[in-house]
Amino acid sequence: MSHHTNLIVPALQTEEEAETQTQNGSENSVWRFRGSDTAAKASSVTMRVIVYKLFDLCTPDIKKPLLPLAHGDPSVYPCYRTSIHVENALVDVIRTGKGNSYGPAAGILPARQAVADYVNRDLTNKVTPSDVFMTVGCNQGIELVIQSLARPNANILLPRPSYAHYEGRAIYSGLEVRKYDLLPENEWKIDLQGIEAMADENTVAMVIINPNNPCGNVYSYDHLKKVAETARKLGIMVISDEVYSQTIFGDNPFVPMGLFSSIAPVITLSGISKGWIVPGWRIGWIVFNDPQGIFKSTGVAQSLQQNLDISPDATTMVQLALPEILEKSNKEMFAKKNSILKQNVELVCDRLKDIPCVVCTKKPESCTYLLAKLELHLMEDIEDDMDFCMKLASEENLVFLPGVALGSKNWIRITTGVEAQMLEDAMKRLNGFCQRHLKKTETSFQALKLSENGDT
Amino acid sequence: MSHHTNLIVPALQTEEEAETQTQNGSENSVWRFRGSDTAAKASSVTMRVIVYKLFDLCTPDIKKPLLPLAHGDPSVYPCYRTSIHVENALVDVIRTGKGNSYGPAAGILPARQAVADYVNRDLTNKVTPSDVFMTVGCNQGIELVIQSLARPNANILLPRPSYAHYEGRAIYSGLEVRKYDLLPENEWKIDLQGIEAMADENTVAMVIINPNNPCGNVYSYDHLKKVAETARKLGIMVISDEVYSQTIFGDNPFVPMGLFSSIAPVITLSGISKGWIVPGWRIGWIVFNDPQGIFKSTGVAQSLQQNLDISPDATTMVQLALPEILEKSNKEMFAKKNSILKQNVELVCDRLKDIPCVVCTKKPESCTYLLAKLELHLMEDIEDDMDFCMKLASEENLVFLPGVALGSKNWIRITTGVEAQMLEDAMKRLNGFCQRHLKKTETSFQALKLSENGDT
Repeated sequence: MSHHTNLIVPALQTEEEAETQTQNGSENSVWRFRGSDTAAKASSVTMRVIVYKLFDLCTPDIKKPLLPLAHGDPSVYPCYRTSIHVENALVDVIRTGKGNSYGPAAGILPARQAVADYVNRDLTNKVTPSDVFMTVGCNQGIELVIQSLARPNANILLPRPSYAHYEGRAIYSGLEVRKYDLLPENEWKIDLQGIEAMADENTVAMVIINPNNPCGNVYSYDHLKKVAETARKLGIMVISDEVYSQTIFGDNPFVPMGLFSSIAPVITLSGISKGWIVPGWRIGWIVFNDPQGIFKSTGVAQSLQQNLDISPDATTMVQLALPEILEKSNKEMFAKKNSILKQNVELVCDRLKDIPCVVCTKKPESCTYLLAKLELHLMEDIEDDMDFCMKLASEENLVFLPGVALGSKNWIRITTGVEAQMLEDAMKRLNGFCQRHLKKTETSFQALKLSENGDT
Repeated sequence: MSHHTNLIVPALQTEEEAETQTQNGSENSVWRFRGSDTAAKASSVTMRVIVYKLFDLCTPDIKKPLLPLAHGDPSVYPCYRTSIHVENALVDVIRTGKGNSYGPAAGILPARQAVADYVNRDLTNKVTPSDVFMTVGCNQGIELVIQSLARPNANILLPRPSYAHYEGRAIYSGLEVRKYDLLPENEWKIDLQGIEAMADENTVAMVIINPNNPCGNVYSYDHLKKVAETARKLGIMVISDEVYSQTIFGDNPFVPMGLFSSIAPVITLSGISKGWIVPGWRIGWIVFNDPQGIFKSTGVAQSLQQNLDISPDATTMVQLALPEILEKSNKEMFAKKNSILKQNVELVCDRLKDIPCVVCTKKPESCTYLLAKLELHLMEDIEDDMDFCMKLASEENLVFLPGVALGSKNWIRITTGVEAQMLEDAMKRLNGFCQRHLKKTETSFQALKLSENGDT
């Protein structure tokens, strides 16, 4: 284990959780205030709560280092360090002293211009800086867009499996969440028929994530066009999360949803966190792909500006460095990162072939995760994915995210954006765990399978 | 005019406001979404909207440069540039590559520890890192604390005049706002009797700002103790905004509200924006001063953690630089900044003596503003402070903030955290403006007054 746990794991472990807290405080009758419960449910659906729980189950008694493969932050590993060019861009701004000031709520013009130029490389309907809004990472983009759409009785369509922050923020804003399926048997394509069936007159938007977190697939031009046509038919917008667009290592090329903005208006969310491996710099953006001006005429643009006016701003200095970072994007950095990720995926897929009970149904071609299916009928004492992950943590100090946290019960999510030797170690421990929990009736079959593979 | 307008003024001017927008979008009946109106009222009380309006009234026809003295950001002027030590601290972190990662929601431990150490210098009831929560500037601290307290029918007591962000966030969170007075005739002390009269069983907190924005006074030990006793009596907490604690140039020393936390629990809000003159770095903090654990037992601590879980995080790299920035605070930097501010205040007070209609009732001893009273009865065609500021902008390209934006009708707020020659120029224009608008019957009296001062 290298220094990578310095930032995250101990900090998580030292968080004081709410063991001793009561929500009503009736024993303190002198005090009239109490905690709001508005955020409680929104917070409970975030992955963080589950990851904390799994970390708590790990124990030094096992004499194996904790392998944290449940959350995704490659930037803590030296092999994924951002390029010197990116670091220089920020240092240069700091040395001018011109990034110390407040910026306007929507972001400073040079940053908005740089994002417009960057996305316009791939678009036919070009955007302008006034279509771009800078955010405190892509997460704040999610928050602001959802806040700008929320109104009583409205609902939003989210993918299942998905990135949990969408659901948390929708709950917080009072938007009803309806989940449409991504189809594992069909390369994680969107169940467009399901979407048509579940949408109604109160549906305002559908969210897609492309390249897909956590499925790791990349949508084709034709599929995205059908998404736009479905949105048009339903009278809803498409919110397209494209934060992984520079994290692709398969054959399918990235196609921006904005290409179809003349069919249905599109809000694109992205940032530098994943592509440039600097999530802690907290820079993201919202882009309106809206050649017909529908966001203005429906008041969405106005509401977004109002929400920006009262919300935290992204750091000015990183915004000022953005033109240098985006315009002179270091292709070698992307290539190096994606090459490591590809090798890691190959390694995991290769090892999973010999591990009973855990199956990779589709090799990821993007993102930093691998969704694997649990074949629980082969195991004798595992109830579900949560039980699987809890026992794995307590027996092996190995932490994966249970699929239920993402809407996929009885799947697990393995983080591949780590160091290769961590994955080697993880796969060995996973194999040992699965062998131990294999149904007795399966053991002889398994021995046969391993024998056929020449491993025994 | 130096480069200071690069960041703020043109960006404000190029913002596309909502001229052409309609809120319902009935002409786009194919689309089912529309903008949320939740943020509209919250956004409308921010000062930004008024400042935009005043900028719009300025015109190149006047042949005088725009003097933007309505908002406060000294960091845009070279004379207030932060110290090389502060810049070095951040550059050093960037060069390690260890500040690129996500941090935990409440902030990374080294930053929380550094803040605890920093505030403990002045406290008797010491705080620990688990009492500290890092925020995206002090503004996000306001947002998170208010969100954590909001519940149906609850109300919060805010000062009048005040920093407008408090009211905006309270409106957004559905907290009823009740305003207590700061008494100009009593050195801007808090009207504690008024507070007792307006509080009821649904009051949850009172906000104080010390050193005071925008009044520029610094509260004494005795007055703050009375604040705590009043809060205790009412069963409410004190939220103390102390972001200007390193921006004092008068004789009264800063006393932290946390000293009285055994009387009533205190939430302190602060950050590096004002003291270290790096508002664009977006680092603030929330501190629980709560030796009796009341925030835990009432669920406030839990709610704050839940709100942090779903909210944007402060940049990790600046958090990592914080120990170096806080522990080795450059006293020379504070002294230099405060010396310039003091000279600027002296300059403005001196010039105001000769300007009819605008009176400084108390010389500021902190912060970067001067609140001046308008003697409108001496003027012949000025309706109120808004009218005054609008005419001043359109006739002189000089922008002050009308007091009504802060709750003080017929006062104006002059930003003193600018370059001295800007204030010289501003005072000349203000004088010309006032002379022109002076009631004819006053002119001979005014001539007499000037003559006595030896200025004619």
